[in-house]
Amino acid sequence: MADEVKKGLEGVVVAESALSHIDGDEGKLIYRGYTIEDLARGASYEEVLYLLWHGELPNRDELDSFSESMSEEREVDDGVMNTVRELAESDSEPMGALRTAVSMLATYDPDDDSDPADREANLRKGRRITAKIPTILAAFTRIRNGDEPVEPRTDLGHAANFLYMLNDEEPDDVLADVFDQALVLHADHGLNASTFSAMVTSSTLADLHSAVTSAIGTLSGSLHGGANANVMRMLKEVDDSDRDPVDWVDTALDEGRRVAGFGHRVYNVKDPRAKILSEQSEELGEAAGDTKWYEMSVAIEEYMKEEKGLAPNVDFYSASTYYQMGIPIDIYTPIFALSRAGGWIAHVLEQYEDNRLIRPRAKYVGDEDVEFVPIDER
Amino acid sequence: MADEVKKGLEGVVVAESALSHIDGDEGKLIYRGYTIEDLARGASYEEVLYLLWHGELPNRDELDSFSESMSEEREVDDGVMNTVRELAESDSEPMGALRTAVSMLATYDPDDDSDPADREANLRKGRRITAKIPTILAAFTRIRNGDEPVEPRTDLGHAANFLYMLNDEEPDDVLADVFDQALVLHADHGLNASTFSAMVTSSTLADLHSAVTSAIGTLSGSLHGGANANVMRMLKEVDDSDRDPVDWVDTALDEGRRVAGFGHRVYNVKDPRAKILSEQSEELGEAAGDTKWYEMSVAIEEYMKEEKGLAPNVDFYSASTYYQMGIPIDIYTPIFALSRAGGWIAHVLEQYEDNRLIRPRAKYVGDEDVEFVPIDER
Repeated sequence: MADEVKKGLEGVVVAESALSHIDGDEGKLIYRGYTIEDLARGASYEEVLYLLWHGELPNRDELDSFSESMSEEREVDDGVMNTVRELAESDSEPMGALRTAVSMLATYDPDDDSDPADREANLRKGRRITAKIPTILAAFTRIRNGDEPVEPRTDLGHAANFLYMLNDEEPDDVLADVFDQALVLHADHGLNASTFSAMVTSSTLADLHSAVTSAIGTLSGSLHGGANANVMRMLKEVDDSDRDPVDWVDTALDEGRRVAGFGHRVYNVKDPRAKILSEQSEELGEAAGDTKWYEMSVAIEEYMKEEKGLAPNVDFYSASTYYQMGIPIDIYTPIFALSRAGGWIAHVLEQYEDNRLIRPRAKYVGDEDVEFVPIDER
Repeated sequence: MADEVKKGLEGVVVAESALSHIDGDEGKLIYRGYTIEDLARGASYEEVLYLLWHGELPNRDELDSFSESMSEEREVDDGVMNTVRELAESDSEPMGALRTAVSMLATYDPDDDSDPADREANLRKGRRITAKIPTILAAFTRIRNGDEPVEPRTDLGHAANFLYMLNDEEPDDVLADVFDQALVLHADHGLNASTFSAMVTSSTLADLHSAVTSAIGTLSGSLHGGANANVMRMLKEVDDSDRDPVDWVDTALDEGRRVAGFGHRVYNVKDPRAKILSEQSEELGEAAGDTKWYEMSVAIEEYMKEEKGLAPNVDFYSASTYYQMGIPIDIYTPIFALSRAGGWIAHVLEQYEDNRLIRPRAKYVGDEDVEFVPIDER
């Protein structure tokens, strides 16, 4: 049993964490004891960041001071912005651009030479990273469209300021609230692969920027953060086909295609985040007078449940929500990173508090005792 | 037992691998069945890369073709080189600069839009990443010293070309050989933390550049790749103290300081790589007519064995070897990355061949059922 191969580490418990807990049978997600429903409806993204990093929800004064300490860090140094411009003009993949830019932020961070496990320095670094990601992402998206970046504003919340920088237009309250809720929903989720990669990186006492850079790269894969963009590409394919969504899915399943946005390793029932996002998707459709994306999503959800017994995950409804907000499809995954940065940083703070190098083993299945033959005798 | 916390994943087997195997009791390391001693003495770094990536040692024609396909990829695009210049002029940490530059390479890779699991595309990407790391590192090191980068040459081997670009002077055969051996010794080492982080990243079907970027960040920590630089800083401190090395170490141990370069999670006896590097360190000292660093290292090794029962690891002797080659101390860890890139890429190729998302679990130890109170009532 000692040598049993735990490929995927499924079910293996690698850490204790007080951050978030998923009950996959009940479809329940909590952050530090609060249900995701309460937080999405009652707390802003900044409140949730404070909760994850400091252990409790802030009062008004604490929140104001915390929010200000982040909003004043939104500007990004010219060195990084020049690289973002170069990447946008070279048609970089958005996740690759974000990974590169966040990695580069380290050099300009005033705490770059701090002890990697210095909690106060890491909280400052964490606030800076989280504050600057929206600026980087909005600038990248605008530059590749031929537009100039929009400077961040300090008088808007995290969610509203991103939409403002993206569109050069202040969002109305509904859009800002929906986006803020989406950020809350994506802020943390146990030891998903990107969070775990951040922990592995920080376990060598590598710095916080290294850990977040690893996590962005890990999130970019299609089995993780890449899924939300794939859902929207699928919904557009269904729409373009002019076919009934259920017929389309039926054919896709017959052809052995994977229907994006269904199933999750830790949920056996509907992901609670999908429930909240489906309401947002409906609300946005009603506000715009066109609920077709919402209706298409519901039809597919019902059919998948009936045919396959599979429930939608968070990506299934974030797709139509973001689409109806006018966000370009290929930045859905970077937006996931923009939110999850909060969770990554929280887990890295926990890792440093009681660190142990993460170094598993492989079972060697290769050759042994091979005789070496010099190259000219091969 | 199901919920036993495997912090550090010590002893947990997460994969099968045919790449390298460590026998920690015998002090034996093999790559695909060949002993590290045979490879260090008889094979070049390029032969070892071919062995790791293709499963067998190349014959002369295969090696020539492989080496050429790498040497022609040594040049780095202007976009990346401009960022390297900016980082060098901003006094970036070398590992942070390398992490950023390698991440950025993705955008300019002709296979950037390939399927992440396309083996042939990954072999091309792997050759490009490995070929360009020395160019990036040499340019970074020269620019921060106020010198201009030196263009790579295609007529030199991987090791010799790096030393040539670093010093603007072709190395003699002894230096080139010693450096090539050091690269062979560091090329792979089971599932160390950096390799494992590359596997976690690629397990989401993130691309090879994401995986190698994660690994560089992970290697930068002082519990992993950062150790070789710490050994040299310690040896210089011993030298500056004008004290007998054994007395110095004795005092350091009394004061509770950790002596860098000793102990390893998987070796219970002397690391076979340390044996080979100690011979190189001695040889370089004799060639220069001054064996003080070698002698100091031997004295510390003997005392640590006697007092603590600890044997030196690879970092302990790579320190004085690199120092005697005139390599700046703070690029020892990037040089480790320059070599280990070969192993990282080999393990990612294995991961893609039979992929499973790596997603462990945490044991939740936080609050439950906390009542949500709106902010103005807190």
